[in-house]
Amino acid sequence: MMNFRIPILKLRDTLIVSIQWELDDQTALQFQEDLLTKLHETSARGVVIDLTSIDFIDSFIAKVLGDVISMSSLMGARVVITGIQPAVAITLIELGIRLEDVMTALDLENGLDKLQLELEA
Amino acid sequence: MMNFRIPILKLRDTLIVSIQWELDDQTALQFQEDLLTKLHETSARGVVIDLTSIDFIDSFIAKVLGDVISMSSLMGARVVITGIQPAVAITLIELGIRLEDVMTALDLENGLDKLQLELEA
Repeated sequence: MMNFRIPILKLRDTLIVSIQWELDDQTALQFQEDLLTKLHETSARGVVIDLTSIDFIDSFIAKVLGDVISMSSLMGARVVITGIQPAVAITLIELGIRLEDVMTALDLENGLDKLQLELEA
Repeated sequence: MMNFRIPILKLRDTLIVSIQWELDDQTALQFQEDLLTKLHETSARGVVIDLTSIDFIDSFIAKVLGDVISMSSLMGARVVITGIQPAVAITLIELGIRLEDVMTALDLENGLDKLQLELEA
């Protein structure tokens, strides 16, 4: 069986990740590592993580997501999370995962626009 | 074990797919189905398939790729393949997979630009 890894797209100075199916723990950790490595390699200045298709996250995945956002910020990238559905918002807040440095947007298009404005500012 | 599916991103009127790891046969067929379904659902007018990270494809995957391109064209979408590496180009040509209706570009940025020009023309 192949090892499932989430593709990370580079578009100009932004990395784009679309999470479309529920992640298992191993895949989430691999994603965290891949994203940080790619940030380092590409010197991308922004990250958009699109969760539009995700209607549920468990506490482990929520924690990994919170971590990856903090780590990306530490590495100097601006992070935008797009398409957070109600149940996902509830999980994040209930678990005390603060998305302080994070911008949010309705969908991928809006997220990219918002990030572009921010990076040009 | 979860079922691995390739995420398909929608950005404005374009679907973007980045294939970053070698596909097994089942995943390739699932991708074909997912892409055509998403084309139908979203009425996207263009598709960019990025193969930058792929340095080898076997004959089955090459055939699926050729098929998905022909099928997308039939459904009215323009297809751009980006980042074809030498070994992949050799495999496609040797297998007689004609990419007649397909535009190609060096990377994702160029592919999106090319598609945009084409769709506006």
